[in-house]
Amino acid sequence: MDGTNTADELRTIEIIFDAKARTLGKMQSEITVTSRYSDLSFTLQTDEGKLHGGEGKAPMPLHYFAAGVVTCLMTQMKAFAKRLRIPVDDIAMTAAFHWQLQQSGRDPYVSEPVGITIDIEADSGAPLDDLKRLVAAAKEGCFAEKALTQIVPIGHRLKVGDDWIEV
Amino acid sequence: MDGTNTADELRTIEIIFDAKARTLGKMQSEITVTSRYSDLSFTLQTDEGKLHGGEGKAPMPLHYFAAGVVTCLMTQMKAFAKRLRIPVDDIAMTAAFHWQLQQSGRDPYVSEPVGITIDIEADSGAPLDDLKRLVAAAKEGCFAEKALTQIVPIGHRLKVGDDWIEV
Repeated sequence: MDGTNTADELRTIEIIFDAKARTLGKMQSEITVTSRYSDLSFTLQTDEGKLHGGEGKAPMPLHYFAAGVVTCLMTQMKAFAKRLRIPVDDIAMTAAFHWQLQQSGRDPYVSEPVGITIDIEADSGAPLDDLKRLVAAAKEGCFAEKALTQIVPIGHRLKVGDDWIEV
Repeated sequence: MDGTNTADELRTIEIIFDAKARTLGKMQSEITVTSRYSDLSFTLQTDEGKLHGGEGKAPMPLHYFAAGVVTCLMTQMKAFAKRLRIPVDDIAMTAAFHWQLQQSGRDPYVSEPVGITIDIEADSGAPLDDLKRLVAAAKEGCFAEKALTQIVPIGHRLKVGDDWIEV
């Protein structure tokens, strides 16, 4: 930003989250995620269920993933209700995240996303058109949904000695 | 599955996570996520930073989202190392999740994913080709990565009186 922006000029803001993770015993991991923008950092543990060799002592990665997607949309609805001056009190959502995996014997399986459904209940006396407009804005603002409904480039590097190679 | 499968026949398994979320005070939410496959259920709280009207008392939705993606890949690497008989001890990952948002005045912003980078350190004496093969298999198996690198259909419904309408 060059300092000459007025309040109504289109601004671009970079939103970056950094993560550092390591494996613990068995199928457990620990990860620290930091938001650069708001400088908030949290450390979380993960585990797997017994079917996948874990002990079920902490949420599975997909518990966190699904939680992030749904609460991201909910937060956008709350924030944008204020900006759009659409009165909304409590919001509740019921969601289902569906994948399929293809597996042959003990080979590594291949997973594919099938789809997600999100049912929204908003405690509001606002007209239906306003609520539709609010949901539409929340979908456009929701970082998680936008990452799911577009193709996101993911670059992987592997450390080999002192070097990093693309894999 | 029809009961006639042999061990090496290709099987399809449905993986579904259900989530129920509700808003709490200010920008806080609570969400319970349940894995149907392993019947594991966890309840998590979310909050936002002060810049977004919250109090920073719990992870933001994107903390959970990023944690889910990275630990999902890490778990796949650990699980598939066993299946591929590639010896790997500890794994560490450093990741960055990058979005941009476009904002004009106080209008609801629009977000776009830019990309994700994941750097992997694997404590292993295995040949480089084996480690490359392991990372490739983990990428194909990782539910979160596959949902980000493909377009996932997300259906939204809004409750209106006793009915649900597509929005």
